[in-house]
Amino acid sequence: METMLSSASREVVVGGERPTVLIGERINPSGKKWLKEALMKDDLDVVRREAVAQAEAGADVLDVNVGVFGIDEKAMLPRVVETVMGAVDLPLCIDTTDSAALQAALEAYDGKPLVNSVTGEEASLSSVLPLVKEYGAAVVGLVQDDEGIPKDAVRRFQIAEKILRRAEDAGIPRQDVIIDCLVFSVGSDTSSGSQVLEAIRRVRGELGLNVTLGLSNISFGLPDRDLINGAFAAMAVLAGAGCLIVDVEKVRPCVLAADLVAGKDSHARRYLADYRRRK
Amino acid sequence: METMLSSASREVVVGGERPTVLIGERINPSGKKWLKEALMKDDLDVVRREAVAQAEAGADVLDVNVGVFGIDEKAMLPRVVETVMGAVDLPLCIDTTDSAALQAALEAYDGKPLVNSVTGEEASLSSVLPLVKEYGAAVVGLVQDDEGIPKDAVRRFQIAEKILRRAEDAGIPRQDVIIDCLVFSVGSDTSSGSQVLEAIRRVRGELGLNVTLGLSNISFGLPDRDLINGAFAAMAVLAGAGCLIVDVEKVRPCVLAADLVAGKDSHARRYLADYRRRK
Repeated sequence: METMLSSASREVVVGGERPTVLIGERINPSGKKWLKEALMKDDLDVVRREAVAQAEAGADVLDVNVGVFGIDEKAMLPRVVETVMGAVDLPLCIDTTDSAALQAALEAYDGKPLVNSVTGEEASLSSVLPLVKEYGAAVVGLVQDDEGIPKDAVRRFQIAEKILRRAEDAGIPRQDVIIDCLVFSVGSDTSSGSQVLEAIRRVRGELGLNVTLGLSNISFGLPDRDLINGAFAAMAVLAGAGCLIVDVEKVRPCVLAADLVAGKDSHARRYLADYRRRK
Repeated sequence: METMLSSASREVVVGGERPTVLIGERINPSGKKWLKEALMKDDLDVVRREAVAQAEAGADVLDVNVGVFGIDEKAMLPRVVETVMGAVDLPLCIDTTDSAALQAALEAYDGKPLVNSVTGEEASLSSVLPLVKEYGAAVVGLVQDDEGIPKDAVRRFQIAEKILRRAEDAGIPRQDVIIDCLVFSVGSDTSSGSQVLEAIRRVRGELGLNVTLGLSNISFGLPDRDLINGAFAAMAVLAGAGCLIVDVEKVRPCVLAADLVAGKDSHARRYLADYRRRK
């Protein structure tokens, strides 16, 4: 299964035996006071610099999120999307829970973006999927529904199935649905990682869909988070995640090593090129 | 499947949902001029210090190997085994290709050791397995035979099956056979890691045996080896390796993170204890 994303001038394909696609997570004001303040002051230079920095660190796709209290998403999201499109040529992942903001951003976008996200909740399915279809986008499906985020792999898989069925009903091709299996911190639930890895294997193996993951939650509340995130990234690659939503600068070396070991880096070319770049 | 190893005063169990058992690899003169010179001069203080250092770094079992040109293994191996037994209370992994040296070391050992190793070669099967049976040891089976080390997972699995069958014929219980799937560098063969990981899954899933791995070959000839070894360690844990033969001080933090993420560290107790120790 291959999911193609594009900017005006570049295509990125997720899946198959390709190297893991890294989605840069840093244009997101949640927990970033400096970014929130910049957005409040309408200072988009900060966004531009962050986009360029992530591209230089090796991001393949950039997530764009402006969802924070006090900001009019519908007005701001398309502007930030345009700013990032002007700064880098990477495909974007449009990240919002506001369907009016989503539509405005899709209208502004040039290419085939990834919409982040639809959930298994009725309100989300019925508002997001028609927009994904209308604009020919791909979509991230989060495995949560009206009852919340399940703890076990079985329920996660069932929600993934439901999202896929509803997406196909809406006319979206199945290769344009990427499932995010949603991970909790392993600090609060010992089996959190293993349940998610099992869900990834099932969604890949039984539904054939591409899978993504916001890695860093796994280590929330624990020390030396990069060490945990690195181990989880390697396992997620082995379990079948084709793209990861990460802090690219921190996690990319681990993911390149994981791709290398998993047989996704012919003659170690990418690993060696990145090693030389880092030295 | 559970494999119990012991010293005179301590038991270590490999397998089940237990944390990954780390076998310290450093008492091995191959590539270590300082250790070779010490052994040639009969300076066993060096061995003693290395044993203590690995135990302090968190090794669960220590590999003991004196196989290098110019050293009489049959005389030296039991002396080194006694030296290490006197220095630390960890179970030992007796590592030799010389069956006379193996017998002398087994005679000297107090407890249930791991014998490293038997292969699928006739000469090895017929000389090593009777000693493993006689001394009630456990044994590492290397997946190589008279034709060498296979590149693919299928042949590796077949050799593992053969070793298991011959071990059972010799009266060794199947839980005392641990398979080492043998990895080549991913620098020379892109699919080396993925073939070994597939072999691990099959040996665990279909034969139910415990699996070990000498990790570090995966990165031979490549830069930043610890990064590659760490990613491979995480994947090996996920694939089902219950013990790893490693440089403990370098790899243990990665393996503890891998155990944590894989659900083998209840309430992150081991990870947090190690974090506090390292700070």
